[in-house]
Parts: sequence; structure tokens; C-alpha cells
Amino acid sequence: MAAVVAATRWWQLLLVLSAAGMGASGAPQPPNILLLLMDDMGWGDLGVYGEPSRETPNLDRMAAGGLLFPNFYSANPLCSPSRAALLTGRLPIRNGFYTTNAHARNAYTPQEIVGGIPDSEQLLPELLKKAGYVSKIVGKWHLGHRPQFHPLKHGFDEWFGSPNCHFGPYDNKARPNIPVYRDWEMVGRYYEEFPINLKTGEANLTQIYLQEALDFIKRQARHHPFFLYWAVDATHAPVYASKPFLGTSQRGRYGDAVREIDDSIGKILELLQDLHVADNTFVFFTSDNGAALISAPEQGGSNGPFLCGKQTTFEGGMREPALAWWPGHVTAGQVSHQLGSIMDLFTTSLALAGLTPPSDRAIDGLNLLPTLLQGRLMDRPIFYYRGDTLMAATLGQHKAHFWTWTNSWENFRQGIDFCPGQNVSGVTTHNLEDHTKLPLIFHLGRDPGERFPLSFASAEYQEALSRITSVVQQHQEALVPAQPQLNVCNWAVMNWAPPGCEKLGKCLTPPESIPKKCLWSH
Amino acid sequence: MAAVVAATRWWQLLLVLSAAGMGASGAPQPPNILLLLMDDMGWGDLGVYGEPSRETPNLDRMAAGGLLFPNFYSANPLCSPSRAALLTGRLPIRNGFYTTNAHARNAYTPQEIVGGIPDSEQLLPELLKKAGYVSKIVGKWHLGHRPQFHPLKHGFDEWFGSPNCHFGPYDNKARPNIPVYRDWEMVGRYYEEFPINLKTGEANLTQIYLQEALDFIKRQARHHPFFLYWAVDATHAPVYASKPFLGTSQRGRYGDAVREIDDSIGKILELLQDLHVADNTFVFFTSDNGAALISAPEQGGSNGPFLCGKQTTFEGGMREPALAWWPGHVTAGQVSHQLGSIMDLFTTSLALAGLTPPSDRAIDGLNLLPTLLQGRLMDRPIFYYRGDTLMAATLGQHKAHFWTWTNSWENFRQGIDFCPGQNVSGVTTHNLEDHTKLPLIFHLGRDPGERFPLSFASAEYQEALSRITSVVQQHQEALVPAQPQLNVCNWAVMNWAPPGCEKLGKCLTPPESIPKKCLWSH
Repeated sequence: MAAVVAATRWWQLLLVLSAAGMGASGAPQPPNILLLLMDDMGWGDLGVYGEPSRETPNLDRMAAGGLLFPNFYSANPLCSPSRAALLTGRLPIRNGFYTTNAHARNAYTPQEIVGGIPDSEQLLPELLKKAGYVSKIVGKWHLGHRPQFHPLKHGFDEWFGSPNCHFGPYDNKARPNIPVYRDWEMVGRYYEEFPINLKTGEANLTQIYLQEALDFIKRQARHHPFFLYWAVDATHAPVYASKPFLGTSQRGRYGDAVREIDDSIGKILELLQDLHVADNTFVFFTSDNGAALISAPEQGGSNGPFLCGKQTTFEGGMREPALAWWPGHVTAGQVSHQLGSIMDLFTTSLALAGLTPPSDRAIDGLNLLPTLLQGRLMDRPIFYYRGDTLMAATLGQHKAHFWTWTNSWENFRQGIDFCPGQNVSGVTTHNLEDHTKLPLIFHLGRDPGERFPLSFASAEYQEALSRITSVVQQHQEALVPAQPQLNVCNWAVMNWAPPGCEKLGKCLTPPESIPKKCLWSH
Repeated sequence: MAAVVAATRWWQLLLVLSAAGMGASGAPQPPNILLLLMDDMGWGDLGVYGEPSRETPNLDRMAAGGLLFPNFYSANPLCSPSRAALLTGRLPIRNGFYTTNAHARNAYTPQEIVGGIPDSEQLLPELLKKAGYVSKIVGKWHLGHRPQFHPLKHGFDEWFGSPNCHFGPYDNKARPNIPVYRDWEMVGRYYEEFPINLKTGEANLTQIYLQEALDFIKRQARHHPFFLYWAVDATHAPVYASKPFLGTSQRGRYGDAVREIDDSIGKILELLQDLHVADNTFVFFTSDNGAALISAPEQGGSNGPFLCGKQTTFEGGMREPALAWWPGHVTAGQVSHQLGSIMDLFTTSLALAGLTPPSDRAIDGLNLLPTLLQGRLMDRPIFYYRGDTLMAATLGQHKAHFWTWTNSWENFRQGIDFCPGQNVSGVTTHNLEDHTKLPLIFHLGRDPGERFPLSFASAEYQEALSRITSVVQQHQEALVPAQPQLNVCNWAVMNWAPPGCEKLGKCLTPPESIPKKCLWSH
């Protein structure tokens, strides 16, 4: 046994060394890290995940050349908390990206939000600096838009993109248009310098984001290791695509946006190969939450066979497409049933850089390198939170729902439907139903669509409940919730006068400061 | 233009010649034809179609080495009519596999059915004889069990399998157990000589069917061209698998059955390659109808993102997994969006044999060789019948529903649910709703789940309706319905004393002959 262990260790060492590569100076250099984070893209949106139109040839090729996770999860069914979790390796309840204004409410960072990523959180690019990484974020930040939350104050060296969603257009009176930044300063606003035509769906943004990625990679590839966080948002409503892609998809405008992103990812991977740095660049593709079925069919994607979508803690809300690609290191054509989390990208990236996560706080992300490089499966839970509430937990193949809720009857009667065409009695409830005493348990292998709860009387139920309860108790006993960041709203903090506005003559006058509780309706 | 046509013809000729191969004698020999027909397997059951457990490595490899159809359809949402359509190239309404006992009812061939495949129908193996083919059916026939309907009376040279489903066990008094035939004679009965353990799910049948296929291929490969129709039924409830596969799937017993079939198909394709006949064997994989969600999750499969399942004319009832594989002829790694039909396998097989379909009758199947060999897309409708009623039609991306019905309120309240967890208001109706005046139209590219009917007022609706109406009118004007075969039932015609029963001492005494109308409840 000792010999086996020793052999395993030697092999791990070899893998780490071979993973490290060599810099231009001949000194070992950790690999570049490229995270491709989609916005509201669903598990079922890629050809390789069964989308019937099969319009993602580049991503399908990336899957064939790498490793595909069918069981990979976001940390929250909504954008901001999920992104905060990715960059901190911690659940939103630990990093502050949640609300306590009401029970089990989703919250994000609209223009009027006061909060954002606390200084006490250590973000991935901040930590990667210790290993000499140069970091850039392209696209959507969504971790707060007030000056103290700026990505360049949290470890990124460069930024091209926006702090908020591309909602709009606004009148710049009651509400300003959303700014687009280059590094420290605003360089224009959506619907102004960066037009989005809501009628035709035309916008050039994905092309701009592509160019930003290509330029950064070309600049960095031969010097420092880089961390590029490519957080495009064309698949978030209002969805958009540039002219050459508009009208080209069988799936309508949403499909046009997917096609343009797929094409861009093809170009990015091609550049890595042309520059001969593909084998020294770890690339990971995933999405921030499930497809927004509320926007379907024109503006929303597909969650494949799963139940419901964005905003919910059913599988459709949080199970994500996920592909790892690292030629020469991650063996091509693999599928791993490891339960993965977006938070693992934090810990895994640190491991790639030869760093360990901060030891002074709880970290929820796992180092996935044993899975990626050696095919290991690690036992770990997935927690599904909605705001302050642990709604569900998955362990192995079993998922227990402690609370169920899609949205309120009031919202639902107004036509807000997060589960169009789906209705599982007692499961897709429009009241927040308490199952903590007797959780609903599903076997996700036999029943990925969460349609058939296990019988409470079955031995399988009892066994699964006992395993999950023990893990949940452990989690909850150790949990120290952060100060919630998404409780207070104030119209005065909107993007009225971001840095750089003077140069552009685009400073707007904020209204009187009136902090108030944010209203989160679901 | 003339030059282009001539060039195209020359190219087609070349393809046909190259497709033909050469027999042992040096004379051109048409390719072997191997149809792998699944039972109640759904579109979403293969890894390559997005099944999350990804347990079909052999089928996924077959897809990667051949051509995948995402838009391939059965001819009916029920077994018998779909199989009759495959072997005749004709819709069930033309070949008699339907009922007029009630409006829009599904019907099949239970033991008490009097009807079966009429002698006037020309079946594929009958026609292939003209090109020297030797034909074998392994598995489920389902085209009638009375002597005149025997597969060896309709062109097959060999049979190992059963005329009916493997329902049971029966008491051999009120109802006999189902016979298993070798060629002309019964060699035993299910649950007797061919055990199926309903409790454990163990049965050796897929292994027997595999062996039958391998033996036939080995015998025929070097002599005559062969047609092998491998119609296994392990994925039809009660699902079964042999001991080495039981308990091995993440998906439960249904998954065990899929894994055993996948493994068997891997062995069949491997044998073709070992015998060096793979490039002279056209292999096609598909299923007879959508997954039987009524049997989910333990005994039913997955229809991926599609609506409802078996028994319905929604996509989940009739869209099928479909793979073509013919190394050296069908280019590897293709996806074709051609609307395909199980009836195309009739016409395509004839074309492979250098034969043309009978000219004295309407044939619904297309020759898919231009699609398979040259990537051509052909405009054609898909018709969705339920018994005597045209429920829906698809043309291009648009599907029009003329009638909607899942099943009756009465059945539904008894717990019979063909759409568990799904409910699209006004679409998944429990009354047979007449939309013939104003059809519901869906765009299957944007909305594969049939959740969002187009607005009646939209230009898209008007345009699609006009195109579809014209094709449907043409179809209906030319349609000559056959004498319905599935109207009369009689307990005296059950499998009491099939040929060979004397040798086995297994002849049972039929009850008095009392013909009556069959009752079809949905």
C-alpha cells in the first residue's frame, strides 16, 4: 500500500511539473488561465449537451478535445452572487452577495444597489498576483459599481466592460444608461457610444469583447502568465449579435448570440494554438446560472431535460454546461461525473498557479486538478441557496429540497413564469413551502427532471436523507454568514458620474441620497 | 444548367458505383443493410443527444463515425404502426395499421388482435430478395401474430424473436404467455423457457439477440448481401438486462437495459470491422417511438427537451435518435438537419440495393442517400397521425397542430400521464381539441419544447399556415386509407397454439371465438 501511495505521489508531482511549463526565461512558469463565463446560458444550449440545432461547432470541438462535466453547478441561480462566488471561491452567504430583506429572495446588483464586493474578500486575480499573473476582465463585472468595488481595486490589472447588465435604454434623468469602462474610466455608455438596437438585436459588443481577448492574449502570451476572465453577456436579455450573425441561427435571436460567442471562442482557442501557448493555457467554459426561461423563446436559452430555469433552485436554475480544455494535460474526449461547482474554478486556478487558498476563511471551491488530470472522483455536496436560505443540497445522485418555490402566485399571475410548460405538483410551488422536516428527495440519475420524489417510506429515501442531513448539519454549524450586501438601495448611487465622465462630458447629476430597503420580489 | 445537371448525375452514378462494392466473385454487390431498431427509446437517451449520465459510449462513437439526425421521426407514437411503416415505407393509414373504432386512437397488436400486415403490402425484405439479399429479423415483429402474418411469409428468411411485446407473465388459461420463435416455429415462451424476472429485472434476451445478430453476420458476410433487422426490446417496460449489466447504470434499471444494448451494438460494429465488411454495410440506428414517460422513472427513458412522450403527437412522442454509419461512404462526424422519417429507411434501403420502390402505391419514405452521401437537404413534410386522424404536420421549422390530445381526463385522473411534470395550457389537452380551423403553430428551432404557440396575428403564423395547409391538402386529397387492421379483437386468436407447440408440448386450448371491437382508450 505504501508503495502505491508513493507511486501516486510521484505521478502527481510529475503532473504538476509537466503542468507548469517553462517561461521564456527557462524558469518554470504556471499556466495561463482563461475562464469563459457565459451569461444566462443553459445546460442545454450546446450541441454537445443535446441542443437540437447543434450550432456550437467550436464548443463541441472544445469538448471533444477536453473534458465535459454533465454535473457542474453555479453557486446561485442569479448572476451577481454566482460571479462573486466564482471569484472568491465562497458561497454568496459567506461573501455577502445575498439579501436578508425577505426570506429566500434572489438579489443582484442593479444600478441602485449600495453594496458590492467587500474589501475583506480576497478575489482570484488578487491572489494570482503572488504568482506573477497579469489579469484582465472582459465584459460584465456585476460585483458592485461604486468606486470601492471597481475590479481594478480587487486584483484585475485591466478591464474592458461594464459593472452592470446591459439593460436600457434609459433617459439619463430618472436613470442613467449603463457605463462601459476601459480600465479605470468610463469610455461611453450602452445605447450611446455602445449601441444596442433592441428592435433588430444588433450590437457589436461580442466582437469588441473578442478583440479585447485576442489583444490581451497576444500581448501577454510571451511574458507573464495571464488570467483572462471573459465574461460576455450577449445571451442575457436583451440578447444581441453583430450583423454577420443576426438571422443566421435556426433558434432565432438567442441562437444568433450563441453562434457569435461560439465563433469567438473558436477564434480565441485558435489564437492560443497559433501562438503555441495552448498547452500552457488552462481554459474553462461555463455559465453563471441556468437559462432564463422567463425570456424564452426569443430571448432565452435551454436547460435541456432539467426543471425550470434561472431564479430557481431546481436543476434548470443551477446546472451548467462546463468544459475544460488544456491540450497535452487534460486528456481529450473525457466526461467526468464529478459534482463540480463554479467555485472550484477559484481553488483550481490557485492550484494551477502553485498557490493555496486563504486559510483564514471557509472556502467552498475544490481543487479539481485530480479530476481533470487523473480522473478522480471526489465526494462533495452542492448547496443550492436562494438569498439567505439553503433551499436544497445534492450529495452523490440524491438531491434533497428543504424548501421549494418558483415565484409568488402574484408574480405568476402577472405572467412571470420561471418554469414555462413545467408543473410538478408539490415541487414547482408558488408558495415558499417548508420541507425541512421531511425533505423532498430526488435521484438525479434516474430522474434528472425532478419529477418523481422518492417515497418517504423507502429505504433509499431514509439512507439518502441521513447522508445529506449529516453534511448539511456540518455545513450549517460551521457557517458564518457575511454582512448582506444586497439589502440597501439608493438612487443616488447609480452610474450618474463614473470616473472619466468629465472627459466625455457625460457626468449626470445624482438625485438626493435616500437609502432604502431594496425590494426583491422573488 | 444542363451541364450542371449532367455533372450532378455523373457524380450520383459514381456514388452509387462506389457504394456498391464488389462481391466475392468480383461482381458488384450491393451493401449489407443493418437496421438497429430500439423499443420506446427516447431522443434524449443517448450521451450524444445530451443524456446527462452519458452511458452510451458505443452509440456516441457510432455517431462520431457517422451522421447524426437531430430531426428524425417515427411514423407513429406507438410500436406496431411505426414498425409496419418502417417495413412498408408507408404511413399506417395506408398500410392498415390503425383503428377506426374511435376518433384519433392509438392501437397496436396485443394478443387478441385479429389483424396484421396485409398480404397486399410489400415489405422491405420481400423486395430486397430481387437484389439477392438474405434477410433476418431478430427480436420483436409486432405486425400480427396469426399464421398469415408470420415474418417468413413477408420476405424474411430467418427469425429469432417474438410476435408480441414481452408482457406477462400470464397464467396460460385466460391468456397465454407470449411465444418466442426460431424461424417457423415457437421454441418457448417468455417467462417460461425465456425467463424475465420482473422483480430483479434480469433477463438474458439482449445477449441472445446479440448472439443471433453476430452469428447471422458471420454466416452471411462473405456470401449474399444481407438485411438484418435487429429489433430488440429491453427498453420497453418491463425493462430488463442480463446479470452483468444489472445495477451498473446511474439511471437505474432502464439505464442498465440501455447500457447492455449499447454494449451489444459496439460488439456488432466491431464484428463488421473485424470481418472487413464495415465499408460494405450500411448501419442505421433509431427507435420506434418516443420514450414511454408513463413508465418513468424506473422503466422509461428520456425525450430530452421535448414535450410529452410515447402515445402523443408532440415531439416527445415521435422525434427519435437516429444515426447512420457506413465507413468510407458516410463522412464521419456529420449532423444533418434533414427532416427524416423511419419510413425513409424503406426507400433508402431499396436505393442501396439498386431497387426502386413499388410504383403502384403511394410511398411516404424518401431516399436519404443524397443527404447521407452528399449532404443535401430535401423539403418534405412530417405527418403525425394518431389512428385515423392527422393530428399535426411539420414543414421546415414549423409544426402545426390540427388536433391536440394527451389522454382523457378519465385516464389522467387514474394516474395515466404521458407528460409527467409537463403542462402547456391549451396544448397538452385532456380533451381531443379541434384546431383544424385555426391550427396551433410552433417554431421548433426557437421552441423545440412546443411551449409557445405563434401568435395567430403574426405574419410568421400566416406564412407558415399557408405553406403547411397546401402540403396537407395535397396529402389528404391523394390519400386512400387502407382497411383498418386494428379494429377487431378476439381472444380465440391469441398465441394459444403457435406452430411448433406440439413438439414442445405447449399447445393451449383457445376459448370460443367471439370477435368484438377492440377498445382503444387513448
